[in-house]
Amino acid sequence: MTTVAAPVTTTVTPARLRSAELEQRIQQDPGRFRVMTGDRPTGALHLGHYFGTLHNRVRLQDLGVDVFVIIADYQVLTDRDVAERLGEHMEGMLLDYLAIGIDPARTTIFNHSAVPALNQLMLPFLSLVSVAELSRNPTVKDEIAHSRQSAVSGLMFTYPVHQAADILFCKGNLVPVGQDQLPHLEVTRSVARRFNERYGPVFPEPDALLSAAPLLLGTDGTKMSKSRANSIALGATADETARLIRGARTDADRHITYAPQTRPGVSGLVLLAALCLDRDPHEVAEEIGDGGGAALKRTVTDAVNERLAPVRARRAEYAQDMAYVRSVLRDGNERANAVAEATLAQVRQVMGAVL
Amino acid sequence: MTTVAAPVTTTVTPARLRSAELEQRIQQDPGRFRVMTGDRPTGALHLGHYFGTLHNRVRLQDLGVDVFVIIADYQVLTDRDVAERLGEHMEGMLLDYLAIGIDPARTTIFNHSAVPALNQLMLPFLSLVSVAELSRNPTVKDEIAHSRQSAVSGLMFTYPVHQAADILFCKGNLVPVGQDQLPHLEVTRSVARRFNERYGPVFPEPDALLSAAPLLLGTDGTKMSKSRANSIALGATADETARLIRGARTDADRHITYAPQTRPGVSGLVLLAALCLDRDPHEVAEEIGDGGGAALKRTVTDAVNERLAPVRARRAEYAQDMAYVRSVLRDGNERANAVAEATLAQVRQVMGAVL
Repeated sequence: MTTVAAPVTTTVTPARLRSAELEQRIQQDPGRFRVMTGDRPTGALHLGHYFGTLHNRVRLQDLGVDVFVIIADYQVLTDRDVAERLGEHMEGMLLDYLAIGIDPARTTIFNHSAVPALNQLMLPFLSLVSVAELSRNPTVKDEIAHSRQSAVSGLMFTYPVHQAADILFCKGNLVPVGQDQLPHLEVTRSVARRFNERYGPVFPEPDALLSAAPLLLGTDGTKMSKSRANSIALGATADETARLIRGARTDADRHITYAPQTRPGVSGLVLLAALCLDRDPHEVAEEIGDGGGAALKRTVTDAVNERLAPVRARRAEYAQDMAYVRSVLRDGNERANAVAEATLAQVRQVMGAVL
Repeated sequence: MTTVAAPVTTTVTPARLRSAELEQRIQQDPGRFRVMTGDRPTGALHLGHYFGTLHNRVRLQDLGVDVFVIIADYQVLTDRDVAERLGEHMEGMLLDYLAIGIDPARTTIFNHSAVPALNQLMLPFLSLVSVAELSRNPTVKDEIAHSRQSAVSGLMFTYPVHQAADILFCKGNLVPVGQDQLPHLEVTRSVARRFNERYGPVFPEPDALLSAAPLLLGTDGTKMSKSRANSIALGATADETARLIRGARTDADRHITYAPQTRPGVSGLVLLAALCLDRDPHEVAEEIGDGGGAALKRTVTDAVNERLAPVRARRAEYAQDMAYVRSVLRDGNERANAVAEATLAQVRQVMGAVL
């Protein structure tokens, strides 16, 4: 399986057309691309991540694209509850990455706070963005609206500039994003363009690679999320998976259909099975027919557990050798530091820091 | 001479009382203090700097205080005109520092962009300050009002947080400032306090050491400034100094008095002579009496050239050995990096970055 099924119809936009064109170019010449992507280490990775982004990373890696995966620990260190379990979260994520097929020989996994030269890019980059631009960034507005904090911190406010540093330090030219993250990437593109115009050509203007993945709902019918207890972790056991799906919200209609707008609970489960089986969700629903919630849940449980069985087996194997797992991050950090220092040296040179 | 004359009467404020108390404690136990101070490498250091801050650094160093001097190159790299001559500016500043008596064996001279771990502190620090706080900082407001840029950049907006990193990376507990910089330092104090409350005691809450130095006017009767051609550089020759003072603005009244409010031009020159001679400006004015502008200018020229003669001689000597001068910065950067990395390691530990 090399592509994620996209059963939800999507509007054709310039960004989508561009992404389709990029997909063709990736197939033709994968070596031209360096993908920058990553996760916040706030908890276990789950099926939403898997079908949303993780699977796509492995696909790109296997096509021959150079992939950089950042564990954005500095973005969560300020959340005390998360920070207290950070070591655990990071080790869990490393296990998940390795289990799904990320190959540290081809993909660089590193964590934010271990690469000082990356963070140093913040200073010139901050000078290239105005406060007005930062204020009107819709993703930041959204972050602010959904944050638990009463006041907007300087860290949140400058987030798009941090992201620019995360992407540009390694001269990433391709960033897999959802539609809602396009404005963020626009800041990165502006920073790269303005830097190049002002000081000389150093950075690529990274392209967005829009995700074709559908929104996967959690077992409570809302978006699958680490912070709501509605997600099936990649590292969960088959029994835990069965229990979670047994408790999922369905409805009183015994006839199973795929109708995301009117039956979100049932359709979420159908979609999950379809993604795991690499099939069309309407077909999956039709097969279950009048079997009702119980039959649907059996189908989903079997599909998820079967799909994840090899991932979980590999995960358990790697967990036997945590020294190796930690060395993956150490080696990735070393590589990321070398790349960051080379970029910083170039930045210093064009900016005139000669001493 | 160990103190700068302060002929301008100053209002007694809590900050002034605190500074007087600190001066006493410095005399008693200088080893308790680490001073953090510095300059932007935008051009040659001049007499305004000398009597405003440089002289005070040497005084503190000679009292046994541990002094860190930052050359804030990252704050000027974004100014193209400055950046193009940065190497020259920095070498000139190093020469000035050494010439006035800064001793690299006791004082650490380093430049901002050479200490990545310092800049890394920006991330946690940004999380501890709200956008509202940054918006209402009067010094930032002032910077914005006087900046040539039409839009406020993210760099300027976050300046007080950069300053917090500059001061706290070396756990500076004493910052010589002018009255107008007190709000800036308040941000640093808030960052230190909030960090300690949230994660554990790492940083001192640095105290302001208010400067007793009077405002020195330039040869055109306005504030002495690198950007207006009205300043006498420490490195200028005796002839250049004489020429600058000859062209200074005085007035038609031949009787010389010290009356800063009503006769800024004449009084600026009187004050300059008085500072160089370590005397009271009223006395200096009285001695010149009816000698007029010509006698005043002769007095000032002699006083400045005599005061700066040993400084200039040392400067010329050091200029013969630029390899040594550059090694001062290299060694200082090494020391600053070691200090910054130790602080960062402590920060990472209390914040929970265990991997």
